[in-house]
Amino acid sequence: MKHLTEYLAFNTKTRQEFINITSQVEEAVKKSGIKEGLCLVNAMHITASVFINDNEAGLHQDFLDWLEGLAPHDRKKYKHNMTGEDNGDAHLKRTVMGREVLVAVTKGRLDFGPWEQIFYGEFDGQRRKRVLIKVIGE
Amino acid sequence: MKHLTEYLAFNTKTRQEFINITSQVEEAVKKSGIKEGLCLVNAMHITASVFINDNEAGLHQDFLDWLEGLAPHDRKKYKHNMTGEDNGDAHLKRTVMGREVLVAVTKGRLDFGPWEQIFYGEFDGQRRKRVLIKVIGE
Amino acid sequence: MKHLTEYLAFNTKTRQEFINITSQVEEAVKKSGIKEGLCLVNAMHITASVFINDNEAGLHQDFLDWLEGLAPHDRKKYKHNMTGEDNGDAHLKRTVMGREVLVAVTKGRLDFGPWEQIFYGEFDGQRRKRVLIKVIGE
Repeated sequence: MKHLTEYLAFNTKTRQEFINITSQVEEAVKKSGIKEGLCLVNAMHITASVFINDNEAGLHQDFLDWLEGLAPHDRKKYKHNMTGEDNGDAHLKRTVMGREVLVAVTKGRLDFGPWEQIFYGEFDGQRRKRVLIKVIGE
Repeated sequence: MKHLTEYLAFNTKTRQEFINITSQVEEAVKKSGIKEGLCLVNAMHITASVFINDNEAGLHQDFLDWLEGLAPHDRKKYKHNMTGEDNGDAHLKRTVMGREVLVAVTKGRLDFGPWEQIFYGEFDGQRRKRVLIKVIGE
Repeated sequence: MKHLTEYLAFNTKTRQEFINITSQVEEAVKKSGIKEGLCLVNAMHITASVFINDNEAGLHQDFLDWLEGLAPHDRKKYKHNMTGEDNGDAHLKRTVMGREVLVAVTKGRLDFGPWEQIFYGEFDGQRRKRVLIKVIGE
């Protein structure tokens, strides 16, 4: 069994941001030399997400608007914010979007449908955060 | 390490539909000859889901009603629909239900609790779409 | 390839409860002898969740309050409850929180960010339920 572990680092300029990381994940798979296996990509922080969806700016704004409706950014709304934090909403938003994705590796490539792209979803940015890529297989 | 890759294809008659694919996934595991490992099942399209829950018709209707409340099918509501699409809601619904499931394979079988069943969840159907099954192990 | 399968059992005193299972998962990884691989942890029941987030009591109450808003515990609200069940809400709540997590194993340890902890999330407790841990790798 082969394996590869890589870490990506982000420090977004705004509190919320979606970043397309598909090419970085593809690069890691290539580097691993793995032809058949599984590729895990996960946020290492609990107010961020890794998810798969469409690379379309209007849809990304729809996601942000929808999440704001489901879990508004409001300092007074969350008990978590009584600890001195202001990111209670970010923990909930990341839960809706998911922590991780798992992608099949087939013939040395991410085995994707026609529109699948991997995104880092930041909900409490402007600080350094990491994403883990782990590929196993042969 | 052994591995097996299979693709299922769906073309639902209605826009939204849940299809029980448990037996097809079990068949793939059997075919792989893998006794101990992991089985990934994921939607390859970004307006569809693969999820695990109960095989009960009332609950499935509850899911559809609940998702319609969270992300209504409304052509004018989503910026994504300004691209000519009418499926903005389907991207959000699939996000709630999830893209993928990962199931342990133990002694050659899907290692399931008493009520776990795997479903394909379609939110923008009436066109050909695929699901990927990847089994790795030994 | 090495592999290990473990089952945890829970019987919560209250209907809803979050239990930190990080140390039990770490123990399983250690026992497996696996240095590089993947560790799946999933609820085996469809009204329970395994998720990763912060070990902070206020945030856990925020999750419960938020989920109650998204999918209230109401016997009359769900078609599923016409089967004699009263847990329609628990199926929806678990869907938001997720069935499973997949964690990379690197150098024999769960490869976690600074605040990541694994929780069992019970939404219809006071009965025996199980969690599965599957570690594969080398």
